[in-house]
Amino acid sequence: MSRLSLNQWTIRPRSLAEAVDGCVRHDIASIGLWRDHVAAHGLTETAALVRSSGLRVSSLCRGGFFNRPDWLEDNRRAIEEAAELEAACLVLVPGGLPAGSKDLSAARSHVAAALATLAPYASEHGVRLAVEPMHPMYCADRSVISTLAQALEVAPPSVGVVVDCFHVWWDPDALSQITRAGDRIASFQLSDFLNPLPADVLLGRAMMGDGVIDFAPLCAAVDAAGYTGDVEVEIFNADVWAADPDEVLPLMKERYASLVERRITR
Amino acid sequence: MSRLSLNQWTIRPRSLAEAVDGCVRHDIASIGLWRDHVAAHGLTETAALVRSSGLRVSSLCRGGFFNRPDWLEDNRRAIEEAAELEAACLVLVPGGLPAGSKDLSAARSHVAAALATLAPYASEHGVRLAVEPMHPMYCADRSVISTLAQALEVAPPSVGVVVDCFHVWWDPDALSQITRAGDRIASFQLSDFLNPLPADVLLGRAMMGDGVIDFAPLCAAVDAAGYTGDVEVEIFNADVWAADPDEVLPLMKERYASLVERRITR
Repeated sequence: MSRLSLNQWTIRPRSLAEAVDGCVRHDIASIGLWRDHVAAHGLTETAALVRSSGLRVSSLCRGGFFNRPDWLEDNRRAIEEAAELEAACLVLVPGGLPAGSKDLSAARSHVAAALATLAPYASEHGVRLAVEPMHPMYCADRSVISTLAQALEVAPPSVGVVVDCFHVWWDPDALSQITRAGDRIASFQLSDFLNPLPADVLLGRAMMGDGVIDFAPLCAAVDAAGYTGDVEVEIFNADVWAADPDEVLPLMKERYASLVERRITR
Repeated sequence: MSRLSLNQWTIRPRSLAEAVDGCVRHDIASIGLWRDHVAAHGLTETAALVRSSGLRVSSLCRGGFFNRPDWLEDNRRAIEEAAELEAACLVLVPGGLPAGSKDLSAARSHVAAALATLAPYASEHGVRLAVEPMHPMYCADRSVISTLAQALEVAPPSVGVVVDCFHVWWDPDALSQITRAGDRIASFQLSDFLNPLPADVLLGRAMMGDGVIDFAPLCAAVDAAGYTGDVEVEIFNADVWAADPDEVLPLMKERYASLVERRITR
């Protein structure tokens, strides 16, 4: 259980302090933080709280959205925040099509250029960037980067990738691209894929075991690729958000133990 | 406008006779038929009606669903129906995961085996099979075949593929795989991708121009690949279904003329 991390959006309605407290009380050693929650708590205060609690910060979510006019300034701030929080990586959601545009090819080229621009700034700050390819149903509005192969191609070698089971499970090349990614895997995230999807497809994630994903081959591939970092559970789901975290966190540990942990050997 | 075809599910609430009549009155020379509508009208009667109306049958939708217990018998019947209707191809929707299974790899292998089983039967009947890779958001319930590359790999060489813009627009390899497909392109279908998606993602299609797809590069690639067949408009959309076909069909022709036709040179 030592590599399990709670991404705090799994209990999104709860404050940063409550999420940290939940990890401590439920013996979860690592947490994935979100910038909105960090800002509400205060950056310096968050860094102090996490350190005094003894938690690792498995990721900071999220930079990216390179289709927005203020992307450069915002991502520089995100890098500075990730450095202060000593996050293992800064997750980058590439962003969809710019407002009013249908030029997918140009949007993808812009992501490549933005990553090349940000990589040196991240290195200076000791921050590892992690591009997240997202499920193709989000191509228009959240990520023009839809596959691991594409993420590995558009990102400079110093930039890592996020392997999120929800986003990549369907990809016929998922396992081979995880192998190819090797030490560029900067984050490994878990949540299940609901079928049918709910009305808001952003909330189509579920607790592991409640959807259609077979986690075994994905976990085995990530393990075989040499990944030794934390394994984050990140669920966007209205029912999970409405539930008591003191029920969600034990269930998360139980499902992690039965579906994931034995596939992670390192 | 000579290659434009109305897929009859674009006006799904209308009967087969009404769809044929709509094509004749609006000078649309080709129609894509659905088996449920054909069965309601009668197979022999449909074949006679279409011939007497002078329409081409650009496709029969649909066989496939290889995850269902009766797939073999049902697909043989579909092939026989396509032969009687002289359809240019029989569209195959591969089907999702079998009930209770999460074994995606096994489901994909089964699709390959089913296609190999059906290909000779189709050849004997002079029917061209066309596998349709579908958007990854349908992977669990409608098609474990999610990309053109995958379709071209699992299908025997005699089996063609459907290039449906709605399903493939997001794919970073769409254009290169269209080129690779060449004369294996058995059907080219149009509809736009809505953003945001509606509550039922099956109805996330729209009239060309009302969504996020840039049709120009897809049309140019299909054209360059040598495709000379009909171009079918297939829209699953609650508003389009509720509209008067005498408004839908002229709008379809208008959008086809402005967004598609000049990209189709052959």
